[in-house]
Amino acid sequence: MTAQPDQNPANADRIIISVDAMGGDNGPSAVVAGIAKSAEKNPDIGFILHGPKQVLKPLVAKRSGLSERVQYRDTPDVVTMEDKPSHVMRNGKSTSMWSALESVRNGEAQGAVSCGNTGALMALSVIRLRKLPGVNRPAIAILFPSRNPQGFNVMLDAGADIRADAPDLLQYALMGASYARNGVGLKRPRIGLLNVGTEEHKGRPELKEAHALIARFAEQADFDFVGFVEGSDIPGTTADVIVTDGFTGNIAIKTGEGTARMIADLLREAFQYSLLSRLASVLAITSLGRLKKRIDPRRVNGGVFLGLNGTVVKSHGSADATGVSAAVKLAFRLAKSGFSEKLAARVASTVELAQDVAEPARRTAEQQQKEEGQA
Amino acid sequence: MTAQPDQNPANADRIIISVDAMGGDNGPSAVVAGIAKSAEKNPDIGFILHGPKQVLKPLVAKRSGLSERVQYRDTPDVVTMEDKPSHVMRNGKSTSMWSALESVRNGEAQGAVSCGNTGALMALSVIRLRKLPGVNRPAIAILFPSRNPQGFNVMLDAGADIRADAPDLLQYALMGASYARNGVGLKRPRIGLLNVGTEEHKGRPELKEAHALIARFAEQADFDFVGFVEGSDIPGTTADVIVTDGFTGNIAIKTGEGTARMIADLLREAFQYSLLSRLASVLAITSLGRLKKRIDPRRVNGGVFLGLNGTVVKSHGSADATGVSAAVKLAFRLAKSGFSEKLAARVASTVELAQDVAEPARRTAEQQQKEEGQA
Repeated sequence: MTAQPDQNPANADRIIISVDAMGGDNGPSAVVAGIAKSAEKNPDIGFILHGPKQVLKPLVAKRSGLSERVQYRDTPDVVTMEDKPSHVMRNGKSTSMWSALESVRNGEAQGAVSCGNTGALMALSVIRLRKLPGVNRPAIAILFPSRNPQGFNVMLDAGADIRADAPDLLQYALMGASYARNGVGLKRPRIGLLNVGTEEHKGRPELKEAHALIARFAEQADFDFVGFVEGSDIPGTTADVIVTDGFTGNIAIKTGEGTARMIADLLREAFQYSLLSRLASVLAITSLGRLKKRIDPRRVNGGVFLGLNGTVVKSHGSADATGVSAAVKLAFRLAKSGFSEKLAARVASTVELAQDVAEPARRTAEQQQKEEGQA
Repeated sequence: MTAQPDQNPANADRIIISVDAMGGDNGPSAVVAGIAKSAEKNPDIGFILHGPKQVLKPLVAKRSGLSERVQYRDTPDVVTMEDKPSHVMRNGKSTSMWSALESVRNGEAQGAVSCGNTGALMALSVIRLRKLPGVNRPAIAILFPSRNPQGFNVMLDAGADIRADAPDLLQYALMGASYARNGVGLKRPRIGLLNVGTEEHKGRPELKEAHALIARFAEQADFDFVGFVEGSDIPGTTADVIVTDGFTGNIAIKTGEGTARMIADLLREAFQYSLLSRLASVLAITSLGRLKKRIDPRRVNGGVFLGLNGTVVKSHGSADATGVSAAVKLAFRLAKSGFSEKLAARVASTVELAQDVAEPARRTAEQQQKEEGQA
């Protein structure tokens, strides 16, 4: 690591979150505003801030009481949104993103938060923190607003890897269940496998195979498997955790976000249409504010990287203070619950069994396809 | 064909739409209500109605002026939503769905509309109407509300086939452009290829290959190719036509629909929260009605099957009179514009060139991947 430690004994009893201050669309000022917001609300949190110290220190100094909660790691370079992950893996040692992960790796911090380039952050996380034993593809889990009592559903993979075969999807189900339990507080989460229909004969071969695998693990891993679910169930009430590959997951999230944004725009226009509608909008402002808060993506900001030795939260690139603060809160909650260790234990306990089960299950799925072909 | 013709000379100068009256969630009464609505608005339209005549005739008789616009094909059986396509293909000859397609096949009608089982309708359409020469996989094109001036974007494939390789995606681009031109009235549609990012190095190999293929055809086929687009562009303004495989397309549509439904529900709840918010909702009712109309899926109801000899419009299974009427209107508009013939000519003119281009393009894409791997 190139950055020099800058110890601060006041942080001794706090949970320390390592924060990449650079690389977000709104620059370090939004990140510092976000951690100030978190610090104000939560006395048990401390920060290691990564970036050019001469830029960060004045920003922190402006926030009363924040300086004594922050340590710095002075790093000169920044990963941009355009940098290819392969380039960052080779040349990124002096970046704030690399340094932020290093603090988790060496145990100085209990979790990392970054608003930067997702692909680079995942690539660096894999090489620096390493995958958990038995995990083939790490995944990004996000929270999607839903009609469920908890207000949102977990969906993974949201785009860590564009491929996923049946054993990967099983891993996602196990990791997603663990996240829903420890991060969201659902004792027995309901897991759904995303497909183009709910009938068991539908969809791609790897989905039928994954269906069989996940069903076999539900009891042991302490979740309910509701079988195949459809796109409409992502914001719905059928499942708490939606499992899919990173290609499909990425498209689904962005379609949902785009649809919500379109409706918000059209709602605004509808209320500006006439004098009466403007008057209505003044009276409706509290109601609309309530709705906006309910589905505000900033409130559930933060994709969690699952399947690594350590907690990494990817905040939205365009996050403002509210968004950064939500991502920090999530990292704090996960660190405090010992999520990373619990997930590791959960995966380890199932890896062996999974290997025993995967091969026969694969053969069964192939057999079924053959029989259907003959029918 | 099992059903007997029941000629009505009054229909001589009209465009005749063949309507499967059965198989929708709301039964034949919703379908008859829908065609009555269409008949009222449009004097140039006539119908062939397929289903049990003793059920349909009284429903038609209740609508003034409708009887003289309707011919019947008396069919005893119905394709249910649960029937497997393979079963219907073997045993469906006496169903209203089969009969509805038959009227297009033998030239009695210029287009067919059904609210029934999508998989069965597509399977029957392929075996009875046959694919256009040069089309490997027919596609379903739907209209998705968007911020574009025309109010919606075309997206295909919405779920006809869960697979699509690069030449299929090229066909979808050609067919989608033709539909946008003839069905939606866009002279030079902008085509986007759905991916997890807009950078050219992202996504699956077949998408990189399709990117190269579509780019080479844009000029000749008279559309603009905007390259890769993301899920957020489906309701956005970047492209008019979104091209993707039927698996991803199905997930994206249903996620968008589910998100819109969730927001509508939450909006309703937000306005019922307090006395003031209820008052606001009374004043806002016109504004909200305007918004609702703008994104009402019933107004753009109808997935069009592309790549077949003949026009088939799949109405939503849960369509009410408004929805059925919108699907009929779409079938009428397409029939009147001679869309089916224009699409066939467009595909034919590009098939030969496509075959010349596909092979070298495939080699180029493979070469690129190799080079990236080495870089």
